[in-house]
Amino acid sequence: MARIKIGVIGAGSVAWSSKLIHDLLHMPTLYGSKVYLMDINEERLRLLKGFAERYMSEIGGNYEFITTTDRLEAIRDADIVINTAMYGGHQYYEEMRRISEKHGYYRGVNSTEWNMVSDYHTIWGYYQWKLAMDIAGETEEYAPNAWLIQLANPVFELTTLIARETKARVIGLCHGHMGYREIAHTIGLDPDKVDFEAIGFNHVIWLTRFRYNGEDAYPLIDKWIEEKAEEYWQEWRKTQVNPFDIQMSPAAVDMYRRYGLFPVGDTVRGGTWMYHWNLETKKQWFGPTGGPDSEIGWEIYLTHGEAWLEELEEALKNNSPLAPMFPKGLTGETIVPLINSLIHDEPGTYQVNVLNMGAIEGLPDNIAVEIPATVDGKGVKRPQGLRLPGRIMKLVLWPRMLRAEMAIEGFLEGGFQVLVDWLMLDPRTKSEKQAEQAWQEILSIPGNEEMKKHYR
Amino acid sequence: MARIKIGVIGAGSVAWSSKLIHDLLHMPTLYGSKVYLMDINEERLRLLKGFAERYMSEIGGNYEFITTTDRLEAIRDADIVINTAMYGGHQYYEEMRRISEKHGYYRGVNSTEWNMVSDYHTIWGYYQWKLAMDIAGETEEYAPNAWLIQLANPVFELTTLIARETKARVIGLCHGHMGYREIAHTIGLDPDKVDFEAIGFNHVIWLTRFRYNGEDAYPLIDKWIEEKAEEYWQEWRKTQVNPFDIQMSPAAVDMYRRYGLFPVGDTVRGGTWMYHWNLETKKQWFGPTGGPDSEIGWEIYLTHGEAWLEELEEALKNNSPLAPMFPKGLTGETIVPLINSLIHDEPGTYQVNVLNMGAIEGLPDNIAVEIPATVDGKGVKRPQGLRLPGRIMKLVLWPRMLRAEMAIEGFLEGGFQVLVDWLMLDPRTKSEKQAEQAWQEILSIPGNEEMKKHYR
Ligand SMILES: NC(=O)c1ccc[n+]([C@@H]2O[C@H](COP(=O)([O-])OP(=O)(O)OC[C@H]3O[C@@H](n4cnc5c(N)ncnc54)[C@H](O)[C@@H]3O)[C@@H](O)[C@H]2O)c1
Ligand SMILES: NC(=O)c1ccc[n+]([C@@H]2O[C@H](COP(=O)([O-])OP(=O)(O)OC[C@H]3O[C@@H](n4cnc5c(N)ncnc54)[C@H](O)[C@@H]3O)[C@@H](O)[C@H]2O)c1
Repeated sequence: MARIKIGVIGAGSVAWSSKLIHDLLHMPTLYGSKVYLMDINEERLRLLKGFAERYMSEIGGNYEFITTTDRLEAIRDADIVINTAMYGGHQYYEEMRRISEKHGYYRGVNSTEWNMVSDYHTIWGYYQWKLAMDIAGETEEYAPNAWLIQLANPVFELTTLIARETKARVIGLCHGHMGYREIAHTIGLDPDKVDFEAIGFNHVIWLTRFRYNGEDAYPLIDKWIEEKAEEYWQEWRKTQVNPFDIQMSPAAVDMYRRYGLFPVGDTVRGGTWMYHWNLETKKQWFGPTGGPDSEIGWEIYLTHGEAWLEELEEALKNNSPLAPMFPKGLTGETIVPLINSLIHDEPGTYQVNVLNMGAIEGLPDNIAVEIPATVDGKGVKRPQGLRLPGRIMKLVLWPRMLRAEMAIEGFLEGGFQVLVDWLMLDPRTKSEKQAEQAWQEILSIPGNEEMKKHYR
Repeated sequence: MARIKIGVIGAGSVAWSSKLIHDLLHMPTLYGSKVYLMDINEERLRLLKGFAERYMSEIGGNYEFITTTDRLEAIRDADIVINTAMYGGHQYYEEMRRISEKHGYYRGVNSTEWNMVSDYHTIWGYYQWKLAMDIAGETEEYAPNAWLIQLANPVFELTTLIARETKARVIGLCHGHMGYREIAHTIGLDPDKVDFEAIGFNHVIWLTRFRYNGEDAYPLIDKWIEEKAEEYWQEWRKTQVNPFDIQMSPAAVDMYRRYGLFPVGDTVRGGTWMYHWNLETKKQWFGPTGGPDSEIGWEIYLTHGEAWLEELEEALKNNSPLAPMFPKGLTGETIVPLINSLIHDEPGTYQVNVLNMGAIEGLPDNIAVEIPATVDGKGVKRPQGLRLPGRIMKLVLWPRMLRAEMAIEGFLEGGFQVLVDWLMLDPRTKSEKQAEQAWQEILSIPGNEEMKKHYR
């Protein structure tokens, strides 16, 4: 039992932190560790501290939870630094989205083919990136031996940027790959018995292996599509409440048909503008809520996030039991088991985002890929020579990689041109004036002064 | 004096072949060689044969010119194979352009950011690529020691494809880099005294070095822009006759301002759609003819090509002297001096297109770049570690490289999706229906049956 220091930056991201604390409490091998919960929002820290203490007393566990608004206090000499921080809060980005839409950019200038996720802030994520790089810089300097777990989005671009530009030992994590369980469940298979592989970029991963009882189970997907999909969709169109319930949507099946492999998890939220022109189109492909990244679906997600906060507050106030609000045992999120493997040198296979370095054939070495890899005390052991079909490589991963490289170039070197040329590759653009005016108004939002200067 | 065999495929490309023959006649070290002029157009071969014999008798030289419609005859045991062939003739592509424009794709679905050149057939160049790959395959098999000089466009994509997929020793050539002489001349410098470097992809090369009398001469460009450009443009707007007269156009200067280095040669023809929305926009940036790739400029180019054929025919018929129709001495084209260096192992520096293999930092190894390299009997010696600014790499070369990879994927693996997604990255696209309908009509042109099957 190693007593370690874990620094969580942006711990007020309560959805995340409550699950993290739950999993820590279910990981006895980490008992005795110190968990620094850092945020700039003291009210959320108070809530989180109250929750952590109460929940530990309720279900047992042995951690010291320290809340702080001092980032260095959380990072200094930490063994694990976790970044779940999102600069500015969701409303800051909704304002940029509103202005974009005034200029004809539905769902915002940040949304592009294969990245329609509403809080995956790339080209307009200047401050979010600066925050992530500050955290990585301080980790490098004050916790040089720490592992930096990047949960805050955009995991793809930030893992790439941090790994290229700093010495921090960064690993990007997400949970989209768990979508394979929904695929299995929907077509009548026991997810626990499925052997799968899904690789690509974060939020752009494709099912390269899907086996059941030692056999390729893709034919079962094809069979379901042929025999059950229509019926499933009829029911689904009436009952879909959760906008994230899209793993087996018409969009997912259509992407499988067009690109040759099944899209997993948040990948289904992407695709080209053919799935996203407007609310009506989104409803066709993603169901009555229009999916997570329609004006309806995203609103549901944001309010749901706040509801979770209020629920926790209620439970604390009424002293009602917390355990029923959580699953039994570990949540299935990667992060705490991964920490255990890193700290106790216990090899385990995890879905991680790290620089490619030959893991996926045909992609540059210095771009972050999402792959299953063995993790132990020495870190991530990449598989080599994983393969994706040419169509997915060149019609999906390459265009998505171009967007990452353009956003990284813009963040590192600034200048207005990158912002305009970003939109010149976009079917919503009618003229460069439209692109220029959209950006000028976005950059002029109070608070964007530094960003405006950077992109002069 | 080595007697070699040169096979020219598509020799009826008279603009090219007449210059080739002129330069051969001015390269005594290659005298005694056999020049096979192959084409499927016998009439052009007759014209070319007549010209070659008459011109040799007029200005001296010692070659055997053999015309043939049998490609293997020209390739078998050749030391040099030159591909200047263009499948289908210009009208075949003008028909696809016409249909594209019916569907809202001004200047055709093949035109994209950084490739507006009207005969640089990439995504719709299925038969041109097939022809180039057949030639490369036959060279590999019947002339394994030959050098394959790729002149026919798209030099960027075809050099990349041939180098990746065959063992043919391919070198792509163009003459766009000579644009540096126009830059020098216009700002009052003697081009012969300028030391320059221009690198990137074919038709996407940027002036990374421009020195005069041992000093950086970029400040002289800046000075010209500040003091002389307006005056120059006023005159130029009145007098521009040649649509290719755009090296110092408002577009070239604007690209320099936005991307940080001066664009050289055909690069100026590119840029994003901001320079190319319609004829009126093109005239603003490229002068009264709208530049080479407007409906006016391209028409002038095509008719000019035919005029040159007729002029040659006239001269032959009237037995008038041919020498006055050509420059004194070598034309300055790379190809014949390059052949001399290859054959006689005489090192020389030439602007060539070869796989990158580390020549330009930050680009994959297996993409063809246009760079200055030393060429001798053993072939091309690439420089290493050439650099381009991040803005040009990520806003210009990367988007252009994505187009190359998509077109190569489409050619190798087919399927309709690549054609649709090609247009989903395009501001002329309003809906995927528009993209699908444009392609369906293009693929249904009589003669495109095999292409339609390939892209099913
Ligand atoms: N990787 C994944 O699987 C996954 C899943 C969901 C969300 N996310 C990402 O997690 C991040 C947080 O999302 P959320 O919805 O919880 O947002 P949120 O706004 O609810 O939480 C973000 C927290 O960051 C804090 N913060 C902001 N600036 C800070 C700073 N300078 N220093 C410290 N803390 C700061 C905020 O106060 C807030 O408490 C986002 O980037 C989101 O995209 C990732
Ligand atoms: N690299 C450069 O600097 C440069 C400059 C100008 C033009 N080009 C390229 O050169 C090529 C020819 O251009 P052009 O304007 O002279 O065209 P063109 O149509 O006048 O000449 C092409 C020739 O290819 C012949 N041809 C067609 N199919 C053939 C086949 N299957 N086998 C043998 N010959 C065949 C045609 O009969 C014709 O004589 C084009 O690809 C053009 O883009 C390159």
